[in-house]
Amino acid sequence: MAGAAEGNGPAAVDVGMDGGVPGLSAVIPGWFSEISPMWPGEAHSMKVEKVLFQGKSDYQNVVVFQSATYGKVLVLDGVIQLTERDECAYQEMITHLPLCSIQNPKKVLVIGGGDGGVIREVSRHASVEQIDMCEIDAMVVDVSKKYFPDVAVGFQDPRVNLHIGDGVAFLKAVPHGTYDAVIVDSSDPIGPAKELFEKPFFELIAKALRPGGVVCTQAESLWLHMHLIQDIVSNCREIFKGSVNYAWTTVPTYPSGMIGFMLCSTEGPAVDFKNPVTRVEGEGSHPQVKGPLRFYNAEIHSAAFCLPSFVNKAIGSKLR
Amino acid sequence: MAGAAEGNGPAAVDVGMDGGVPGLSAVIPGWFSEISPMWPGEAHSMKVEKVLFQGKSDYQNVVVFQSATYGKVLVLDGVIQLTERDECAYQEMITHLPLCSIQNPKKVLVIGGGDGGVIREVSRHASVEQIDMCEIDAMVVDVSKKYFPDVAVGFQDPRVNLHIGDGVAFLKAVPHGTYDAVIVDSSDPIGPAKELFEKPFFELIAKALRPGGVVCTQAESLWLHMHLIQDIVSNCREIFKGSVNYAWTTVPTYPSGMIGFMLCSTEGPAVDFKNPVTRVEGEGSHPQVKGPLRFYNAEIHSAAFCLPSFVNKAIGSKLR
Repeated sequence: MAGAAEGNGPAAVDVGMDGGVPGLSAVIPGWFSEISPMWPGEAHSMKVEKVLFQGKSDYQNVVVFQSATYGKVLVLDGVIQLTERDECAYQEMITHLPLCSIQNPKKVLVIGGGDGGVIREVSRHASVEQIDMCEIDAMVVDVSKKYFPDVAVGFQDPRVNLHIGDGVAFLKAVPHGTYDAVIVDSSDPIGPAKELFEKPFFELIAKALRPGGVVCTQAESLWLHMHLIQDIVSNCREIFKGSVNYAWTTVPTYPSGMIGFMLCSTEGPAVDFKNPVTRVEGEGSHPQVKGPLRFYNAEIHSAAFCLPSFVNKAIGSKLR
Repeated sequence: MAGAAEGNGPAAVDVGMDGGVPGLSAVIPGWFSEISPMWPGEAHSMKVEKVLFQGKSDYQNVVVFQSATYGKVLVLDGVIQLTERDECAYQEMITHLPLCSIQNPKKVLVIGGGDGGVIREVSRHASVEQIDMCEIDAMVVDVSKKYFPDVAVGFQDPRVNLHIGDGVAFLKAVPHGTYDAVIVDSSDPIGPAKELFEKPFFELIAKALRPGGVVCTQAESLWLHMHLIQDIVSNCREIFKGSVNYAWTTVPTYPSGMIGFMLCSTEGPAVDFKNPVTRVEGEGSHPQVKGPLRFYNAEIHSAAFCLPSFVNKAIGSKLR
């Protein structure tokens, strides 16, 4: 139950008064604390009302808990993936930033995103005919369907084809020029998502996209991971011959309270990411999507590409 | 040294192994945790390398510590006010959002802001002739001058007149129509800043402003305090007959990783907050201001007024 502080951070101790929950570290008894070498020296903590699920898949620890003030929370390898209270910001932005930047997206691939939130948002686009998803961990899908029905609702869309497997292997088998858009909804580059931040992966995506097709990948925090972002931008600039841009959004339960997105297009019809060409608000929603957009709108789409001066200095000259 | 958990959250325990530091609660030994009824059920924690100052003023507990990864940190009554790593976002936005929305600001009043960061930013505006500041707590000024010289540099500007006292009393004595801009850099509405969120305070500001003058006040988090924000917006709409708008920015070490600003103008020459009329980047900087802007630019100024859909729903109809 008790952990001794060691090294650079506090040791993980188990949550709960009657036995430990592997994969859910707590530095405050009864609270979950998110501790990672990706953000040393700081931790966000949430009060746990009840641990609803704990499992160890072939890839990671999977935990769901009921928090005191953010609804249910999904944690993978000790890192918050989503909370019911703020998931709208991430899911809506990572999906509609790319899909609203092109006209009539028809074929969409989602890598990762096993909770179903991204495909829920893709479902809003009436032009979409085929949604392929490749998630490595079946446990994430199962857990989401059971504990996050408002997120996993996306899986009910008959346009969705779910593949459980490795994203890199999946992409290798995709015929060139298949997709209008690829969305990479990954966890951090420590653990099973490591390859999804490396150059060969981006090269495979570029081949899988049609000319003028777009990719949007989770691209960490401007405040915490600028060196990582600089590497991603440099790689993408070499690989994607169309537009290369960076956007960000507020997400309170992600480290530093925000997250960024790398958006690129392949050579072909020009894409101007800052000026969306497709509207998704209200109209065209798939009947299975319940409720209006909570976060995204065309104004916040454009605003997301406006970067602080220190970011412009670091990566601005490489964007186009 | 040890605290027992009680009520809805963990009890504050003292930092350090050799005696407590009042005003600096830690739920992880050697870490500072920010716990407040303003954000129940969650806490941001930072590793403390060394406590540099601890004092109790007539108004609040004042603590400065060296953190592991955010530089020096100023904490008032257990709540983070600034860190060296991210203070640029808050100081630059709360200052330049109002000052760049009008032409040639000459007389500026700052309420609160005892650390000096806001006046450092006001100093960049060459048109400004007079900077009055009313801060209630002299200890904050003294501590900032000693531990945050890059923030307190603003006090060296000969245009600055520092008044130690109550902001409401100060405003009552101000002749009508004195200021082009008022900036309210307050702490949360629990503690000495309580009055700075109430209607009589906004009425005094409106009187202190010239026709078409502007005010910018710290206005909490969209994710955490929507009811409070709705009240502020309603009050301001009644009191300010010009523009009434809301903006936000990322600040990693503030609760939910962001903070909002209420911006209003008095009846008179129209103010369009979303489209800045004055540029501050580079040109016109006061010689005492060292270094370029780190966060603010004209693009992010406009972007800051783009609100998520759930915010538009809650307050959009009341903005003008």
